[in-house]
Amino acid sequence: MSIKQITSLTNQTIKDIRALHMRKEREATRQFLAEGLKIIIDALDQGIAPQILIYGKDADHHPLLQRAIDETLKARGQVLEVTRDILEKISRKENPQMVLAVFAQRIRRLSEIDPDSHEVWVALEQVRDPGNLGTIIRTADAAAIGGVILIGDCVDPFSVETVRATMGSIFALPIVKCTREEFIADRGRWTGSVVGTLLTAKHDHRSAPYKRPTLLLMGTEQSGLTPEIADTCDLHVKIPMRGRADSLNLSVATGIMIYAACGL
Amino acid sequence: MSIKQITSLTNQTIKDIRALHMRKEREATRQFLAEGLKIIIDALDQGIAPQILIYGKDADHHPLLQRAIDETLKARGQVLEVTRDILEKISRKENPQMVLAVFAQRIRRLSEIDPDSHEVWVALEQVRDPGNLGTIIRTADAAAIGGVILIGDCVDPFSVETVRATMGSIFALPIVKCTREEFIADRGRWTGSVVGTLLTAKHDHRSAPYKRPTLLLMGTEQSGLTPEIADTCDLHVKIPMRGRADSLNLSVATGIMIYAACGL
Repeated sequence: MSIKQITSLTNQTIKDIRALHMRKEREATRQFLAEGLKIIIDALDQGIAPQILIYGKDADHHPLLQRAIDETLKARGQVLEVTRDILEKISRKENPQMVLAVFAQRIRRLSEIDPDSHEVWVALEQVRDPGNLGTIIRTADAAAIGGVILIGDCVDPFSVETVRATMGSIFALPIVKCTREEFIADRGRWTGSVVGTLLTAKHDHRSAPYKRPTLLLMGTEQSGLTPEIADTCDLHVKIPMRGRADSLNLSVATGIMIYAACGL
Repeated sequence: MSIKQITSLTNQTIKDIRALHMRKEREATRQFLAEGLKIIIDALDQGIAPQILIYGKDADHHPLLQRAIDETLKARGQVLEVTRDILEKISRKENPQMVLAVFAQRIRRLSEIDPDSHEVWVALEQVRDPGNLGTIIRTADAAAIGGVILIGDCVDPFSVETVRATMGSIFALPIVKCTREEFIADRGRWTGSVVGTLLTAKHDHRSAPYKRPTLLLMGTEQSGLTPEIADTCDLHVKIPMRGRADSLNLSVATGIMIYAACGL
């Protein structure tokens, strides 16, 4: 394989890459787009090479770009040198990153993870905000918990915005997707504390036993956990609030819960 | 005073309101724009009425809108009923909120706050991201700490994006602005623990004494605290990280620190 130069905006590969901004296309191809050299190097550092690396022909020839080119070719990926017009078209921005990459999605099923392999896991029901989801994946990675389980109709973890907010952590830990029914059917495998966070809970989050493996359940930004999922919990806790604000941002609340459950 | 109907896109008041999207104009007029009925009701609940209330003439006549109209007029503010075109022009969105308001900025100087009036305060040096700042103000309100001190060249706390992320907490607690020099000059008044969060610190954030009044110092998203501000601290702590990610999102890190310092 060698580097291919593309100058035509109507090139089919460019069209296909651009289509990855649409969730439907990402799900059909099981691919996603990551923008910027930093996240690509983060992926390589974790042993994951792009399927397609795209860079502007006027990009700085940084040694890290050369590394990305070499490792992509070695892994039999495509390397495309493109014009600025094409970069703008792909990234849909006027000042696009000079380096982008297409990666394969890695999504697990519940049956593929072993609850006992880690002390703490987090599950999010119907998370809606891409930035919140990305930030939670980053926090989960920082605390080295088992993974992030997405229950029900969540925002796509592979949107450009979520991937950006993960700061490279999208590659670092398992992302699991399941329906509410699948989660309920799998519940029996969680033999530690299954802790639901609810604004109406009576117990303080610091009073939870967090028996291992602990599964933390966080609900949607607007309305919290659904009754069906709340019912699967061993206990319900809340983060105390004593000011005027009656809720926290979801990524902040999840961060506080993860650090409390890990004892960090 | 009564309700004024405006249909012309070139009306000077409308131009002035629209100009509040620019920081320079916000600082010159000491006003800011808040979008959506919810945040306006949050302000009224805290005893703060808009200087100008703007609503679309096809807005639902919700009882809360009537309350906002009544209270704005009672406080001698202006109430403007406008066309959809004007709403779109003001909010710079295709699907604008049907109700917006202009409020007076409330910014304090360091000399106006009494460190001993609250157990915990947070200071942010050069925070750059509007969403992070708004989220931190919301967390500070939820934990009922003394206020949020902005040191040096920070993002504007009164941008539409920051105000939206505060979820109404922008009105709830003091926002203080100061230069680095002013902060250093005022340092002697902080007689409790002044705790800087640094990735390079040796001590765990949970080992800090948090002597009252505690001032938590958080640095910029990219590079943390400057040496000048780090030098003013009694001790430096870090939030432990044991995964691949070597930092947390600033609003998550600040949330963890605030809850730890408050013992919540």
